[in-house]
Amino acid sequence: MNSYNKNTPYSYTLGISVTIELLVYQPNQINKIFIRENINKETGYNRLISLCEKNNIKAEVNNKIFNKLKAKDNCFVIGEFSKYTTIMTEGNHLLLVNPENDGNLGTIIRSALGFGIKNIGIIKPAVDCFDPKVIRSSMGAIFNVNINYFDSLDEYINKFSKNNLYPFMLKAKTKLSNIKFNKYYTLIFGPESSGLNDEYLNVGKPVIISHDNSIDSLNLPIALSIALYEATKDDFN
Amino acid sequence: MNSYNKNTPYSYTLGISVTIELLVYQPNQINKIFIRENINKETGYNRLISLCEKNNIKAEVNNKIFNKLKAKDNCFVIGEFSKYTTIMTEGNHLLLVNPENDGNLGTIIRSALGFGIKNIGIIKPAVDCFDPKVIRSSMGAIFNVNINYFDSLDEYINKFSKNNLYPFMLKAKTKLSNIKFNKYYTLIFGPESSGLNDEYLNVGKPVIISHDNSIDSLNLPIALSIALYEATKDDFN
Repeated sequence: MNSYNKNTPYSYTLGISVTIELLVYQPNQINKIFIRENINKETGYNRLISLCEKNNIKAEVNNKIFNKLKAKDNCFVIGEFSKYTTIMTEGNHLLLVNPENDGNLGTIIRSALGFGIKNIGIIKPAVDCFDPKVIRSSMGAIFNVNINYFDSLDEYINKFSKNNLYPFMLKAKTKLSNIKFNKYYTLIFGPESSGLNDEYLNVGKPVIISHDNSIDSLNLPIALSIALYEATKDDFN
Repeated sequence: MNSYNKNTPYSYTLGISVTIELLVYQPNQINKIFIRENINKETGYNRLISLCEKNNIKAEVNNKIFNKLKAKDNCFVIGEFSKYTTIMTEGNHLLLVNPENDGNLGTIIRSALGFGIKNIGIIKPAVDCFDPKVIRSSMGAIFNVNINYFDSLDEYINKFSKNNLYPFMLKAKTKLSNIKFNKYYTLIFGPESSGLNDEYLNVGKPVIISHDNSIDSLNLPIALSIALYEATKDDFN
């Protein structure tokens, strides 16, 4: 990966299981499914073909696109789809400020969906959520959530003024385990390299995930998943 | 990366910050520090040089090793060190059964240290903890923990018979948020691809981290970090 260009109207799923998720959740966006000639017709293949037939989507044997997209040798299926727009709905949200890493963004989307948070806001500049690397690391979870980009925190707040804001930052005073999240809540996380800037100390109720000072910080998907676990634990009991 | 060979007695830190961790925690294992000719002498450089001087370690300008180890263009410092042995001590442990992914192992080590768990057991077969990719994704945390490999769960139990065992698995009945971890505890996690096998249902007190069924499972470093957070939260309050 990858020769994907973020300015094209198309993107790609690389791999059979992520393409199956695309077929299940966003079949109407699919242009075509490509299959490598030497595919092993075992795990997942029958499911893939029956989903293509059900949705009247052509599955074409075509080796060239695998080279063009620099797919790995163990990738035998590619889905080409039109990028589409989703609209965040009212509810509990995740808000990512300037996320920098595509693999992390995918992992975050998967964790959010896993804890029942289906609405994710992203403040620009930020990585492109339709990058094939994001899609792959989300394991297809991206096809089952709503993502909107915003130019600023104010733009987000104007749209979702009723949400209670919880910025996560190392300078916060209140510890995660002492927080009672009031619905609807928005968990806010900063970029990998620097975290949220000090202005967020004046936004909502800042929270810290305490840890030993032998490390500088937890990595972003991990800190965020711990916060999601704590915020949603009553929903899963 | 990488032309590292797991059978050699040496390994490498790739990058200035991880090399600084090596200098701080394991200076006696260092053979040499290599510096790329065009290094930017700002962030961290003075700290690196003063740590080398304090420990009487030679810092050599040498571009070749960066090519040999296929270091990225943004890597300007390499530390070469002798692999060393650490000995797990009594206390709370993490036990990894057959971990498969080097990046994940590094992230796990960093999280463990972050939550104050400095003893990690690994049941073979497993990735090599001294692989430069593990070291890099641990951000140097590996130099501050004790890691021992075991041939089997029985070998671990024979050595640490007093620890209470908590295997994490999707088939467990007891939810993480309802568990009271009794010290000393050992949190046990299976391989990325398959998790712990059913035999672990008869080991200690199996635990599940409940999540929405729209995803199959959380990724390993994330599930494990949530468990670490919950097990250690009283220590950080």
